[in-house]
Amino acid sequence: MNRLGRMLLCLAAVMLLAVPALAQEQKVRWKLAMSWTSTLEPLSQAGPWLAQMVSDMTDGNFEIRFEGAEKHKAALGDLLDMVRGGQFEMGHSASYYWKGKDVTTTFFTTAPFDMTAAEQYGWYYYGGGLELMQKVYSKFDVYSFPGGNTGVQMGGWFRKEITSLDDLKGLKMRIPGLAGEVFAKLGVNVTNIAPGELYTALDRGTIDALEWVGPGMDIKMGFHKITPYYYAGWQEPASELQFLVNKAAFDKLPKSYQTVLTTAMQAIALKMTAANFEANARAWEQMKAELPTINMMIFPEPVLKAMKAASDEVLEGYAAENAEFKEVYESRKAYLVTARPWTKVSEQYYLETADVVSE
Amino acid sequence: MNRLGRMLLCLAAVMLLAVPALAQEQKVRWKLAMSWTSTLEPLSQAGPWLAQMVSDMTDGNFEIRFEGAEKHKAALGDLLDMVRGGQFEMGHSASYYWKGKDVTTTFFTTAPFDMTAAEQYGWYYYGGGLELMQKVYSKFDVYSFPGGNTGVQMGGWFRKEITSLDDLKGLKMRIPGLAGEVFAKLGVNVTNIAPGELYTALDRGTIDALEWVGPGMDIKMGFHKITPYYYAGWQEPASELQFLVNKAAFDKLPKSYQTVLTTAMQAIALKMTAANFEANARAWEQMKAELPTINMMIFPEPVLKAMKAASDEVLEGYAAENAEFKEVYESRKAYLVTARPWTKVSEQYYLETADVVSE
Repeated sequence: MNRLGRMLLCLAAVMLLAVPALAQEQKVRWKLAMSWTSTLEPLSQAGPWLAQMVSDMTDGNFEIRFEGAEKHKAALGDLLDMVRGGQFEMGHSASYYWKGKDVTTTFFTTAPFDMTAAEQYGWYYYGGGLELMQKVYSKFDVYSFPGGNTGVQMGGWFRKEITSLDDLKGLKMRIPGLAGEVFAKLGVNVTNIAPGELYTALDRGTIDALEWVGPGMDIKMGFHKITPYYYAGWQEPASELQFLVNKAAFDKLPKSYQTVLTTAMQAIALKMTAANFEANARAWEQMKAELPTINMMIFPEPVLKAMKAASDEVLEGYAAENAEFKEVYESRKAYLVTARPWTKVSEQYYLETADVVSE
Repeated sequence: MNRLGRMLLCLAAVMLLAVPALAQEQKVRWKLAMSWTSTLEPLSQAGPWLAQMVSDMTDGNFEIRFEGAEKHKAALGDLLDMVRGGQFEMGHSASYYWKGKDVTTTFFTTAPFDMTAAEQYGWYYYGGGLELMQKVYSKFDVYSFPGGNTGVQMGGWFRKEITSLDDLKGLKMRIPGLAGEVFAKLGVNVTNIAPGELYTALDRGTIDALEWVGPGMDIKMGFHKITPYYYAGWQEPASELQFLVNKAAFDKLPKSYQTVLTTAMQAIALKMTAANFEANARAWEQMKAELPTINMMIFPEPVLKAMKAASDEVLEGYAAENAEFKEVYESRKAYLVTARPWTKVSEQYYLETADVVSE
């Protein structure tokens, strides 16, 4: 072997030995679909936040590209199937969008007259909530993780004040989900109208009322300019967003990347909750400035009590025919028995105290 | 050069070239000191949670060992110095423990009649809070990060009911920090007693009242067995814990490890908040079971208003002589003007609604 031959052999040996060391940095390319368009802040920040964190933690080796609804064009409820099928390894969405496929999933967002955000995080981490969520989602071959909370969603915009149960009879209202079922029981004519047509429908009186989200989202729709009655929420006291992850894709990741991902999602849940708080607080301030006569109303006591009774009836109905629904429902009710008395003497008493001193 | 010589030369070249590839997995060994003993759950879980997450995310290459107060034996207020001096690269503590060194740091925990936890996270992430915190801490050459919230802390245990401002005059009470200054202005004889002696002092009437934390911590002290009046909180509406990081140590980390660390701390803040909620809710339930006659009281209106006036006086006093204090104080007040109206129509109205339907 001549000198050049020896050098080449040596170089080959160097490369052979160096490559496994470099290969420890496993390259992973994933795609995440969001239920929101890329401009619907703060919800749409889930994608870029996750992509940046995960990339930074892995020196760019674990890359997550994200798509908003304007690109993948799938309906809200189809996101679960896209992640299940592996077209996207991940999604950012809300669990109650596939109520039609599996009604139990609604609980992982929120339910009428149910927990506040703090209570619900207590349930997720210490009341068996995370375990129940994985159990329910295992049939879809995906994992689900908390993805930030929107806080209390408002009860909706009404053209006229609701003074009694009679005012609900025959009222035409756009309100989806469990809350729609509850209102239907109280005689409301529950309708479905495309988001783009809502403003006109409300303005022209084609509908009498609608529920959208909360100030942060509602302000973009302009409802406050045409409807003076804004009702406090009861139907979604703490809507949790979620990350969905394809089970097979997650299980194949190196353990370090699995923890990178779960840690990033948990960190984002905190910031997303703060982002929603901020957006709602700023928008509520702006709405009041633009429309000083805006009325934030609480439904009258007989209406609230009828809504609670109808809500119990709806939930008990599902529980009677669906053992898994019953299991999650009872787990949440049990946690609330422990949680709410504490919420009351801590947060609620403090807010009442603050009211007294600000008078 | 003979055959053996050539092989050795080649091996040396292999090692020389392979080492930089392997060295990408930089080994880092850090120490974290906690202000709490290792058994004071849930606070003491900050250390093990962080160590596990960071190790898992880096394949064991970034290792954080943690020590509780039973080992490092430093006083609460000395933790800042230990992290500043580099004896520990990190700490988990609460910012108001070094009020004596820099009174402005108290704001990063909480302040009397100030923000709730949700409001404060809004301020940290979107109201300039994180930036102000780094500014204040830059003089100590450390970074500070949110480390989880304890929720509302209780107003304390009182042997007798407080019916008027007169009942506060001459009252002997253990209550530290800004709240102690407020009570002192109202004629309370504020004393300091070692934690180990508090139960006996309260039982024998050496003191008439004391403030500790909230149900989760208080239950271990047994105060509910000897004191029937437990007052709702006003002085610490949302005490945020914190991670401290030595600036030079953090700046030297590879960028990927910096993000691993900041992401883990943010994720822990969410879970620690849930853990405190859970601990308080369970303990409050247990206290009521053990002592069904326990009274959760709200101070009477004239007392609350006097406390608010005294609190404003204390804070304005510091603001007048300390520009940095004034800057943070005004930033928080401004955020609350936007935040509280939203808290009121969302969380507070919802809790009132839930009260109505549960009657």
